[in-house]
Amino acid sequence: MKLIEAIREEASCWIPRRLERLCGRLEEMGVGAALVSSQPNLRYLADYEAPIEWGVSPFSPCASLLILIPGRPPELLLAEGEALDPVPTGLVVSRFPGYTFREPIDSMTELASCAVDRLRGISRAVLAVESANFPAALLFALQRALPPLHVIDLTAELASMRAIKDPAEIQILREAVRLTDIGQSVAREAAQAGMSEIELFAEIRRAMEHDAGDRLPILADLISGSRSAEAGGSPGNRILSEGEMVIVDLAPRFKGMWGDSCNTFVIGHASTEQNQLLDQVAKVLAGLIKRVRPGMKACELDAIGRAKIADLGGAYEHHTGHGLGAAWHEEPRIVPYNTSELKPGMVLALEPAIYFERQFGVRLESVMLVTEDGAEVLTGFKHRA
Amino acid sequence: MKLIEAIREEASCWIPRRLERLCGRLEEMGVGAALVSSQPNLRYLADYEAPIEWGVSPFSPCASLLILIPGRPPELLLAEGEALDPVPTGLVVSRFPGYTFREPIDSMTELASCAVDRLRGISRAVLAVESANFPAALLFALQRALPPLHVIDLTAELASMRAIKDPAEIQILREAVRLTDIGQSVAREAAQAGMSEIELFAEIRRAMEHDAGDRLPILADLISGSRSAEAGGSPGNRILSEGEMVIVDLAPRFKGMWGDSCNTFVIGHASTEQNQLLDQVAKVLAGLIKRVRPGMKACELDAIGRAKIADLGGAYEHHTGHGLGAAWHEEPRIVPYNTSELKPGMVLALEPAIYFERQFGVRLESVMLVTEDGAEVLTGFKHRA
Repeated sequence: MKLIEAIREEASCWIPRRLERLCGRLEEMGVGAALVSSQPNLRYLADYEAPIEWGVSPFSPCASLLILIPGRPPELLLAEGEALDPVPTGLVVSRFPGYTFREPIDSMTELASCAVDRLRGISRAVLAVESANFPAALLFALQRALPPLHVIDLTAELASMRAIKDPAEIQILREAVRLTDIGQSVAREAAQAGMSEIELFAEIRRAMEHDAGDRLPILADLISGSRSAEAGGSPGNRILSEGEMVIVDLAPRFKGMWGDSCNTFVIGHASTEQNQLLDQVAKVLAGLIKRVRPGMKACELDAIGRAKIADLGGAYEHHTGHGLGAAWHEEPRIVPYNTSELKPGMVLALEPAIYFERQFGVRLESVMLVTEDGAEVLTGFKHRA
Repeated sequence: MKLIEAIREEASCWIPRRLERLCGRLEEMGVGAALVSSQPNLRYLADYEAPIEWGVSPFSPCASLLILIPGRPPELLLAEGEALDPVPTGLVVSRFPGYTFREPIDSMTELASCAVDRLRGISRAVLAVESANFPAALLFALQRALPPLHVIDLTAELASMRAIKDPAEIQILREAVRLTDIGQSVAREAAQAGMSEIELFAEIRRAMEHDAGDRLPILADLISGSRSAEAGGSPGNRILSEGEMVIVDLAPRFKGMWGDSCNTFVIGHASTEQNQLLDQVAKVLAGLIKRVRPGMKACELDAIGRAKIADLGGAYEHHTGHGLGAAWHEEPRIVPYNTSELKPGMVLALEPAIYFERQFGVRLESVMLVTEDGAEVLTGFKHRA
């Protein structure tokens, strides 16, 4: 736990730098106020890690809102009862009523009234929001109470900032990826013919949550036999059989940041053909990692992966990879159309795969940090033990 | 699995009746179009069960939108890749691009363009939305493309409809509550001194998911020893000790509807005083259940629970209970200010409790269906075995 506390503190110190950088951009863009409402960006800019596993609270549909007004300290409006510890340096935290049993709950009205109060008298009538995520109720309240505002979207600006990680993010991502190493080791040790996918997943999850000492949201594919040809899917009650492939793709959220890794292995004894194919895909992944360089275009990396898998007589109908951070998929997407360049500080998950329709599939994924001259692999487990 | 399939089909048949009733109300309210976007209401009206455990998709922040226009068939706009099987009778399902690796993703723009298309030429310029949940991006698109619309909020109308359950909902709620019975039995059997809260939770979850044959979102408190005085909290790495209280509150989502139950028990051997207190709180819960009657005010039930716990020399700083359905807390809230009357078909969770600051707490919760002349308890496990 001491390490985790240290990571937390470290992260808190970097938040003022992120806020400062964003506020600089807001000035350049002529923004009078920005309202940040999405979970990944609240994590990035305010260290607020929303609980997500049981959906949106019926009491506080918007439990947190970050208000940035150039020239004033950044302020996080947080529903009472929501945890934020420690509060990042330089951030003002104000509370609004969330859950109560004493009177009717209308946390959105309470939040809107705080937001209106803060936005009175801003120097420019340009409001930046994350419009795909910003609740209409807040917008109505602002429109009713304030002079006309020109609303612009902040999403792309923040996505681009988040694509390059700072040391605090990299440190937490290392831990999140290490949790997937634990999960992948247990998957391999525990998997046996006769158990169901969901039972195997219970073993994996138990080990990861035991290590973290906390519940972990986990995005996962766990698909066996012919299901593995479908590329994705939740663990179900299908029973694992001797000699069939299992794809285990694990993305846990740890301290608000997502790890990721995927392995494919055979239940019981693997045939020569199976071993050969697994070796070949492992070689494609290793080859891709070797090619990662700053300045390379994302689409070039994508093309290499697809070509190498085509050489094996197959294909994958998904991305070759993606950025990883406060969201489980983020920039840079490693896809055919993405001409943006890889840069040092980006964290990539690469996941070449091959699927044989209705038969089986193989996907192997590792996470790496783009460095000045290549890539440092963060994933610790070995796909081919 | 056969039972589950049967439940699913049964549920699908009730959806047209819910839609018909809502559309009748929309006519009365003079609404030209209604857009439903929240997870519980999409479940209620279209049987769409959004994945929630890993938060909002970075690709499709609004994966589904239900469009209701009086005189036209209800239409569900669903991102490609989202599951809906079977499609409820009478519902039109249209797809918009969600995730793709072939081109840049802007699913919100795609969704907005579909919505604009459908709303052209509606007969009345009144639009009903769930404003706390409706994305500003959709609103902007509608405002840009259509003649001025008067926007009203649909939230309260739907909350009030959902408070009374139909047979299909009750059938699924029975199953969801039965899953908590399994969890509570395992909690009691598996709990022992030396294990951590998170390890105990892993056992509970494994048993419930094994039974369901699927992953289950679970809202849970699992708090031991002095933590139990805090009323709520996620399982962590605190180690259970002989003779201390554990509160286990489990709310799993099954087929889009939430079960709930809470038990408190002692690790190892309970003292006479502990047994006495647990018996007393069990008596308060049993007494509350006996008092449930249609026509009774929610606040009356609340007052009885608080008075009985006060007789034991304690109190609880939360609701006495709440409705249960497509959201984990919904109407009727059993709280001091709620003067609305209980009605047959309501499903209530009642959870009287007593907390001794910094020492320990006891909370016991059962779920019941309000009947014509009382309550049928849906919870199957016994708090005091």
